[in-house]
Amino acid sequence: MRIGYIGIGIMGLPMAGNLLRAGHDLSVFSRTLSRCDPLAADGAAVCRSSSEVAASSEVVFINVPDTPDVEDVIFGAGGISDGAGAGLIVVDNSTISPRATREFAARLKEKQVDYLDAPVSGGDVGARQGTLAIMAGGDEAVFARCLPLLEVLGSKVVRVGSVGMGQTAKACNQLFCALHMLACCEGISLAKGAGLDPGIMVDVVSSGAGGSWALKNLGPKIVGGDLDPGFMIDLLSKDLRLAMELAEEAGCDLAGAKLAQGLFKQAQKAGLGRLGTQALCRVVD
Amino acid sequence: MRIGYIGIGIMGLPMAGNLLRAGHDLSVFSRTLSRCDPLAADGAAVCRSSSEVAASSEVVFINVPDTPDVEDVIFGAGGISDGAGAGLIVVDNSTISPRATREFAARLKEKQVDYLDAPVSGGDVGARQGTLAIMAGGDEAVFARCLPLLEVLGSKVVRVGSVGMGQTAKACNQLFCALHMLACCEGISLAKGAGLDPGIMVDVVSSGAGGSWALKNLGPKIVGGDLDPGFMIDLLSKDLRLAMELAEEAGCDLAGAKLAQGLFKQAQKAGLGRLGTQALCRVVD
Repeated sequence: MRIGYIGIGIMGLPMAGNLLRAGHDLSVFSRTLSRCDPLAADGAAVCRSSSEVAASSEVVFINVPDTPDVEDVIFGAGGISDGAGAGLIVVDNSTISPRATREFAARLKEKQVDYLDAPVSGGDVGARQGTLAIMAGGDEAVFARCLPLLEVLGSKVVRVGSVGMGQTAKACNQLFCALHMLACCEGISLAKGAGLDPGIMVDVVSSGAGGSWALKNLGPKIVGGDLDPGFMIDLLSKDLRLAMELAEEAGCDLAGAKLAQGLFKQAQKAGLGRLGTQALCRVVD
Repeated sequence: MRIGYIGIGIMGLPMAGNLLRAGHDLSVFSRTLSRCDPLAADGAAVCRSSSEVAASSEVVFINVPDTPDVEDVIFGAGGISDGAGAGLIVVDNSTISPRATREFAARLKEKQVDYLDAPVSGGDVGARQGTLAIMAGGDEAVFARCLPLLEVLGSKVVRVGSVGMGQTAKACNQLFCALHMLACCEGISLAKGAGLDPGIMVDVVSSGAGGSWALKNLGPKIVGGDLDPGFMIDLLSKDLRLAMELAEEAGCDLAGAKLAQGLFKQAQKAGLGRLGTQALCRVVD
């Protein structure tokens, strides 16, 4: 199939690479064009705009940081909308606003372009291994057409509802990631304070009812002082904003998520925004 | 080996049963003696006191709710201390104060009785299946003698340090359990509020970087309205008190754990104390 991938970052690079290796014709574009070099070396066509990617693709994936970035990729100058023919499917792997997602889908529908929001979870490790969890929102027929591609990217691919619901599920997912990271930082802080080897604690707690993906994958990094991203504090902080906006609309008072949001903001103010989310440990006593 | 088990509750019953099925001679005692009936039917000797259990055992396990209960079982009238001969090993599977644990061990040492704190995690499911995580504190030689027994009870058995450190690790474990449960309640609340099927959310988030033991095992119970314990709110609230005492001694300011502690107390005040920890959802909006 002729596939496009726009946004070649920590997640987009391995995801696009997996689509390429699955035998698809791949066109790519990224704001920093040099990031496409490894894919070009493997046979991908590097385009000069999102519009150009759209013109040569049946399905175009997007993976960029925030809602305005997706809007720009689709509707900005040289955007997907300029190059899109009827029948194109846009699949958004970014994590953005559910409300804006529904607006984008409605605007594209006028051009007979279909839309699937398909944010992912599982980190750069899951992206490389093709073991991501993918939470998709969109029409069943559109989902069915994209499923073989999504199954290249993830090992758990679920249509969670209509357009926007993928992003809603991702907002929930990020709430879990944030609170689990807070638990990691506090648990490790408590172990250290009480004279218990934190590495041993992380190992044994991971195996019981206190276990989490975060503890198993990022706990050892906190203990070892490895604060490289993975997934950046700036991005999780943005995702928490989306989750709290959704909570506000829904009338949910989420005290834990609110606390975590405050601590991640504090980490940003402390200049830790471009480190991995595990750098939250720097602001948790 | 001649084994004793004192405290035949939700956890103690399946754990003692696994030791019995592994071929050991088992003596048991519990405050509510009728709880020993299923074990008696399988060949265990039911004793009339902890002292009697100790007198007929090489290793005595304890599994009771709180620090004063362990003290009573060991040092109270008809307690282990009365019946213990030199060389007995006391293994405490309860979750209690690390500081009191060190005191108990020191007092028993005067009688040449060895002590291992070996609290467990993995819920009633892990207890039945023998797949608990066991975090043990004590001398290496004592741990080595108990290891074959602990490996009957758990699939992850780790000596985390000297006497008391098992309880310290368990306090960390309970901090994770409490914060993960908070995440479950808030995530499910957010999904419902935003019109997303909470069961689908739990399923897909469990498979990604937002996953946890709590979400996978207790998330579906929250969604289905099954609030039976499992593990009771009263007990997790007690464990959080132990964790916060430890944090206080260590000078750690754990804002997340403190928030969770307040919410679990609120659940107790609302009369939910004897329900499963997932009943926290009743006080999370």
